[in-house]
Amino acid sequence: MAFTYLTNVPLEQARKEFLRTLDEQGFAARTERIRVQDAFGRITASAVYAHINAPHYACSAMDGVALYAGNSFGATETTPVTLKPGQFAVVDTGDPIPDGCDAVIMVEDLVKHDDGSITIHAPAAPWQHVRQIGEDVCAGEMILPSFVEVTPAAIGAMIAGGVLELEVLAKPVVGIIPTGDEIVPPCADPRPGDILEFNSSIFSAMLAFWGAEAKTYPIVPDRYDEIRDMLQKAASECDVVILNAGSSAGRDDYAAAAVAEVGAVLYHGIAIKPGKPAILGYKGAVPILGVPGYPVSGIIVIDELLRPLIGRWYGRESDGGSRTRAKLTRPVVSGLKYQEYVRVRMGYVGDELTASPLPRGSGVVSSFMKADGLLEVPQGTEGYTAGEEVRVRLLTEKQKLRNTLVVIGSHDPLLDELADLIHREDRRLYLSSTHVGSMGGIMAVRRGEAHAAGIHLLDTETGEYNLSYIRRYFPHGGVYLVRCVGRQQGLMLQKGNPLDIRAFADIARDGLRYVNRQKGSGTRVLMDFLCDRYGVERDGIYGYEREEATHNSVAVQIAGDSADAGMGIYSAAALYGLDFLPICVEEYDLLIPEKVWDTGPVRQLIRTLKSGEFRSRIEAMGGYTLDGPGEIIAKF
Amino acid sequence: MAFTYLTNVPLEQARKEFLRTLDEQGFAARTERIRVQDAFGRITASAVYAHINAPHYACSAMDGVALYAGNSFGATETTPVTLKPGQFAVVDTGDPIPDGCDAVIMVEDLVKHDDGSITIHAPAAPWQHVRQIGEDVCAGEMILPSFVEVTPAAIGAMIAGGVLELEVLAKPVVGIIPTGDEIVPPCADPRPGDILEFNSSIFSAMLAFWGAEAKTYPIVPDRYDEIRDMLQKAASECDVVILNAGSSAGRDDYAAAAVAEVGAVLYHGIAIKPGKPAILGYKGAVPILGVPGYPVSGIIVIDELLRPLIGRWYGRESDGGSRTRAKLTRPVVSGLKYQEYVRVRMGYVGDELTASPLPRGSGVVSSFMKADGLLEVPQGTEGYTAGEEVRVRLLTEKQKLRNTLVVIGSHDPLLDELADLIHREDRRLYLSSTHVGSMGGIMAVRRGEAHAAGIHLLDTETGEYNLSYIRRYFPHGGVYLVRCVGRQQGLMLQKGNPLDIRAFADIARDGLRYVNRQKGSGTRVLMDFLCDRYGVERDGIYGYEREEATHNSVAVQIAGDSADAGMGIYSAAALYGLDFLPICVEEYDLLIPEKVWDTGPVRQLIRTLKSGEFRSRIEAMGGYTLDGPGEIIAKF
Repeated sequence: MAFTYLTNVPLEQARKEFLRTLDEQGFAARTERIRVQDAFGRITASAVYAHINAPHYACSAMDGVALYAGNSFGATETTPVTLKPGQFAVVDTGDPIPDGCDAVIMVEDLVKHDDGSITIHAPAAPWQHVRQIGEDVCAGEMILPSFVEVTPAAIGAMIAGGVLELEVLAKPVVGIIPTGDEIVPPCADPRPGDILEFNSSIFSAMLAFWGAEAKTYPIVPDRYDEIRDMLQKAASECDVVILNAGSSAGRDDYAAAAVAEVGAVLYHGIAIKPGKPAILGYKGAVPILGVPGYPVSGIIVIDELLRPLIGRWYGRESDGGSRTRAKLTRPVVSGLKYQEYVRVRMGYVGDELTASPLPRGSGVVSSFMKADGLLEVPQGTEGYTAGEEVRVRLLTEKQKLRNTLVVIGSHDPLLDELADLIHREDRRLYLSSTHVGSMGGIMAVRRGEAHAAGIHLLDTETGEYNLSYIRRYFPHGGVYLVRCVGRQQGLMLQKGNPLDIRAFADIARDGLRYVNRQKGSGTRVLMDFLCDRYGVERDGIYGYEREEATHNSVAVQIAGDSADAGMGIYSAAALYGLDFLPICVEEYDLLIPEKVWDTGPVRQLIRTLKSGEFRSRIEAMGGYTLDGPGEIIAKF
Repeated sequence: MAFTYLTNVPLEQARKEFLRTLDEQGFAARTERIRVQDAFGRITASAVYAHINAPHYACSAMDGVALYAGNSFGATETTPVTLKPGQFAVVDTGDPIPDGCDAVIMVEDLVKHDDGSITIHAPAAPWQHVRQIGEDVCAGEMILPSFVEVTPAAIGAMIAGGVLELEVLAKPVVGIIPTGDEIVPPCADPRPGDILEFNSSIFSAMLAFWGAEAKTYPIVPDRYDEIRDMLQKAASECDVVILNAGSSAGRDDYAAAAVAEVGAVLYHGIAIKPGKPAILGYKGAVPILGVPGYPVSGIIVIDELLRPLIGRWYGRESDGGSRTRAKLTRPVVSGLKYQEYVRVRMGYVGDELTASPLPRGSGVVSSFMKADGLLEVPQGTEGYTAGEEVRVRLLTEKQKLRNTLVVIGSHDPLLDELADLIHREDRRLYLSSTHVGSMGGIMAVRRGEAHAAGIHLLDTETGEYNLSYIRRYFPHGGVYLVRCVGRQQGLMLQKGNPLDIRAFADIARDGLRYVNRQKGSGTRVLMDFLCDRYGVERDGIYGYEREEATHNSVAVQIAGDSADAGMGIYSAAALYGLDFLPICVEEYDLLIPEKVWDTGPVRQLIRTLKSGEFRSRIEAMGGYTLDGPGEIIAKF
């Protein structure tokens, strides 16, 4: 059993060597013969020549009569020529020109007589008003060269030229082998420890987009023999094989060893993060790509190492997509050892394009879904500081970014509903929300990075919400505070309140597992205020340091019995069927910079806040009070 | 039987009214439930919420041991804590955190003992190295809003969230009814009068591109009842119906009357050219579009009037594609009555983008295949002059245009072979050739509109080719003349030479049908020279005025027995199995402007001319002599 140690080869070198090795092994496109009707978007494998002329017969281009032009010579206004039946034939547009005829006179230019004869007052030039043979396509002429994409009009031209089938590049078949004892097919009720197998579905969609065809094999358990046998089978049936290994060291070893036994391993370990444990192997001309199990790692490895293979198959350049410059909103720290990929949310607030790093966990596939761009931090670079201009690979079109409301600040599920309602109302508009807490929202607005921020900051001295904070952080004004909702804050507790929690101070009880919100969030401000007010020692709360970034994720820990209590809003507790101990009603408002106030997207945001649809959705969620949403509380 | 007269309504008004009427009739997207795995590229019909948390259980983020963090409190380098088996559990990455545990210590940070106990030298914070429930997706949270496109990562996020199916906008089913007695299904051996039915294949590809699904019905003969019945059937089975009528007045009337009987006709006749006889009708909420039979008319009507319907279905803007400015190379004359669509070839020679009008016949589908852009001449405009800057709708990407060698001049089939070879050699490069004759080529190079021109112009005084013309038209130099081929010119004759033509002068014989080349072509110059030399009166040649633009199209007329003789090159005669009377060998060279000489595309052109592949292809065609192709004859 072969064993290959992990390497840490730079991506560019690995990719180049991989392609070079596969070229040597004879990796190249197969071709296939298909019906012309099915050829749209396919790539010709060789030049296509017409078989017949189009039109394949000389035909009339007008309604009129066909005749031998020589018989009309000499006709003038004063010396008309009369032709008897038999000397001409009535033709409609598209009719073949009868034998012996070579011209058409339009019906408007002749006089018909009762005896069936006609008179003309001008000669016909030979071949006037006749569509010549081959006007469109001549037999034997090249219709399409090799290696070009078939367009709708080309389909028409080929059929017109009598071509019914053509040779195109076959779509490469990419076998996907999911492995892992814990991996189960998608279902709605997995057991603890089960991991849903969705990587193959992600990869299949990516492959379809690139013009390849996925063939997903059944899930293989973590057994060396079975992995090796399935690899053998897939390599004999496919043009490319993806071995989607688990991510632990033990499983990786199986994968690399199996690839080495079936074929050869070129590299095991690429200097990228995520994606390091990738395996570049092959069996003859069939590339075998070992892909880590975490979805984000998998997406990046497939994109960086499999996409160029598909490009090579089709003979097209892999340019890596469109890139743009953007201002980084938060610092990005990266290790020197790897090229690191950071998903970013992007937005235009005004003319400047900003990029905000998203969570970097490689298990968080939703971060890829939310990403508008990919920031690559090169190997040997420590990262970037906030405010730095960076080059980002765009995953979202700039036009869409220009139409996207950037909302940064405190989390509330109502933001998702707003996003949905705004886009339903005007399908050009989008709303993207990032949850960094109320203080983070204020800072984002100050830096000109957000169209709006959701905030609910209690001034513990006055009991007033938001106003004093805005005065402090916007001493020169330039912002609007807009009413959104009042919302019920309290302690979310396990269903039925098994620990019998009656008051806020109970959270410090022995044996109670608390789950907190992150620093800078309005709920954390409230929590700390309550600790002070009720004399609860923070150190005495088990789990005080455990931070979650949204009301929902706090509720989920309690619902999943990994915590007993946490502070949050009623709607989140209701969503997960938790008990709720109300503490206060707070004002959740929107902070909007003056400079974007009079823009289309913000006007739509205000309209939607004031709409009946918004009201009914929010009321259905529970725990909110609506007292004039969309109204201006104050202008600073 | 209702009858509707032709209108001439401006396109914009017709489109607006059509959409408004259909809105009133309730034209709107259907939705359907599909598997998440099949949803790539589809549009959500409503917001999608997660059903389960992902991960759905707290799991280890590292390989190590899980424990109750409380048991580790107080551990330091000097006061280590030892845990006995039962106080901890060994976990791999992804394993569930056992009941009673709430933290993970990495394997690197602990000391294992032989009795199975472990020692740690630092406390674990609760929930350290634990992937929390819902880290990726929380149950009940919105994964995707309504009316957005499903991406690969979104497929992953949905499955992770336990969503196995979702509601998407159904693809509109567009019924296509081809009609006409003369219309036959695609075949390679149509009889005279047969018209191959390829419009439905073109339309199907266009529809697929727009996200619709074509359903093509059998060809319906020109019978009112049958057309009406098929319309009725299609309107009951589809979301949109295309009635692809013939183009003659009689058939149009059938179509409009049938639409009127089945539903209603809004407009019959739009002020566009081609495409005027279009019918805008509907049956309830089902739009019925009557489309003229000529393919170019059909493409334009579908593009202008059906695409916006698909856009409305999906709720997206129909922006009509990307537009650009370009310099017109030849004048375009247009009628005031219509908005006219002119297909243009486009090219960059240097930095300036040029647009050259293509043949305007609406039966010439190959012109659409060759078109890089569409020039719209508005209603009420007489056209444009050569050199004018016009706005063109791009059909080819600018990047491709920048990599396209523009060859304008004399026709030779070898240009198609060059195009194929160059693109095979470097798939980023393309060659587009336009056949305007040798003089046209010289003028195009002079105006800076071509990278190269094929020319073969005989100086009848010196017997020399090309040189004297270049001296005359490029008095200040700035061009290279590059050797291409010697080619055999002569008279192409019907197979077996049934008219027993022995000498050039025989073409003036009574009863012989000649077919000529267009003015400005090198072959026409030769023809006229030969007439003078042999004392042949042009007026005495039957068909002297009949002009074709390529060697092939001359040969095709002879092969199709619509002519007896024509001047052209041996390779064209050989392609169509014609007899050939050799007259002279001429020099077909390439004229290349100095300013593009040292560019990648031109260098590749020269390399290809010098290649063995070029030689063997040209030799296989016959009638050529190759004496150093690619060599510089002279620099001016």
